[in-house]
Amino acid sequence: MDFSNWRYEITTHIEQILDDHLPSEILGEVIRYSVLPTGKLFRPLLVYSLANDLDEVTENHQSFACSLELHHTYTLIHDDLPAMDDDDYRRGRLSSHKKFNEWKAILAGDGLLNLSYQLLAEIDSPHLPHILKDYAQFMGPKGLILGQALDLNHNIESFKAVLRVHELKTARLIQLAFRGANYLCEKPLSLQTCDELGLSLGICFQLLDDLCELSEEVSEHEKEINPFLKFDFNTVTQQLIFHIQTVKNIGERNQLATTLKYIDEYFQKILTHLENQQGEIEERIGHSIKSVIEALTIKA
Amino acid sequence: MDFSNWRYEITTHIEQILDDHLPSEILGEVIRYSVLPTGKLFRPLLVYSLANDLDEVTENHQSFACSLELHHTYTLIHDDLPAMDDDDYRRGRLSSHKKFNEWKAILAGDGLLNLSYQLLAEIDSPHLPHILKDYAQFMGPKGLILGQALDLNHNIESFKAVLRVHELKTARLIQLAFRGANYLCEKPLSLQTCDELGLSLGICFQLLDDLCELSEEVSEHEKEINPFLKFDFNTVTQQLIFHIQTVKNIGERNQLATTLKYIDEYFQKILTHLENQQGEIEERIGHSIKSVIEALTIKA
Repeated sequence: MDFSNWRYEITTHIEQILDDHLPSEILGEVIRYSVLPTGKLFRPLLVYSLANDLDEVTENHQSFACSLELHHTYTLIHDDLPAMDDDDYRRGRLSSHKKFNEWKAILAGDGLLNLSYQLLAEIDSPHLPHILKDYAQFMGPKGLILGQALDLNHNIESFKAVLRVHELKTARLIQLAFRGANYLCEKPLSLQTCDELGLSLGICFQLLDDLCELSEEVSEHEKEINPFLKFDFNTVTQQLIFHIQTVKNIGERNQLATTLKYIDEYFQKILTHLENQQGEIEERIGHSIKSVIEALTIKA
Repeated sequence: MDFSNWRYEITTHIEQILDDHLPSEILGEVIRYSVLPTGKLFRPLLVYSLANDLDEVTENHQSFACSLELHHTYTLIHDDLPAMDDDDYRRGRLSSHKKFNEWKAILAGDGLLNLSYQLLAEIDSPHLPHILKDYAQFMGPKGLILGQALDLNHNIESFKAVLRVHELKTARLIQLAFRGANYLCEKPLSLQTCDELGLSLGICFQLLDDLCELSEEVSEHEKEINPFLKFDFNTVTQQLIFHIQTVKNIGERNQLATTLKYIDEYFQKILTHLENQQGEIEERIGHSIKSVIEALTIKA
């Protein structure tokens, strides 16, 4: 399986959606700038991979996958706002509110949020009501948005609280990717399996991101919230390794060959980064990261 | 028909929704403050009225009506933000970002936006995909949100441009109220009739609001954008009267007794206000508003 064809297909479809659903004036440019060029398409590719493992990738999966990417982009635009994380850069370019202005970024985010739901209306399946319900619930004020709020609330005093933010802010969207892909297949997994896989992958994803970040220049604030610097190193590392192994176990047990291959490729990239920066990271945290590197190395 | 029972029913249902779908911590309070006590419930009551005229009010109508009110509330929260209209007050109380802070207001708005879609998942109807599609399209980046953007863009140089903003920012939500109510009835009107009625009512609603505003202290900015002050008075008045009459004509032609009664009650309130403030308003604009008062007086 070569994922670059899927990447191309998803990007092309997203471009078509923007052509069809954006006004030529004003907000069109802001939204286009925020969405394109597309990022690594992690969530849509999980949809495609699971669909391929369980059945085949259909137009329904395509609509759902693109919807997730647009929804993800709205969360990034709003996260970057001055009143939120106040980030001037995103994916190596000016963030939307810096490139345009704040109200345009707020409205572009709102626009993408609505557009993500509009794409669900293109899904032709008796499961549409379930997908819609899970989507809004996982992304709503008890889901991803609560994660954003807890993250901004700056009173995360335990590693357990960090894990809750990661679960809500990062894992919910990945759980939703698996649930949605699953609803649209003939022989689905249990929802519980989707949720467990999504939870573990989401937490790995975020903790690995936190770990990799230590090889870059980090601000005082980032140091303050990075769990590898703030909490007991062994506890954090053990959790990370546990979730890496859980992802591999669930994938194997359910014979999710494509999904595992995609996740392994992702782990491989992280591994390369960690190996290259191992000295710098270990110096910064004062511990060896060998056990993490080993956990990533073992193929499922 | 006594609308206060419906008002009570809608408010009770909204309270229940908030109890069910909000976290007990952090954003729950912000969203609750923004939604409750409910406003005049103009849009949900239009859903109920049209349902009553065409068929009967069902649980589907209830879910749809409450969804619209939550969606409307999100637009108000975001509209009030410093980067948008920068309003410190809403419905006689501090606006959400003043009462709490900006990021809480942004996320509360995002939360309500998702919640409005979540309520659609409760609708049990084969028309759910149509409703979802229209909803996202009417509220999205070519609909209401484009209206907000054009409004903030400060280059409205013709009355035609004002009407376009009113159509997008105000009328789309009212058109959606009629479309949604209509989809959920056994003997629906044509979509065209829904859209025409919603367009004219939306434009009346906003122009009457602009007219009534002239009896209050208005800022320089408000003066600058008030069409009764900025553009040819007769043109603006003629448009307003045309749309008042169109609403009444469409209502009569389709025997929408309850909808007309509700709209008449609303017109009556505006009429009382205009009669009370007639002198002050006429002085401010330098024209007689007798023709508007007459148009509102004639019962459908």
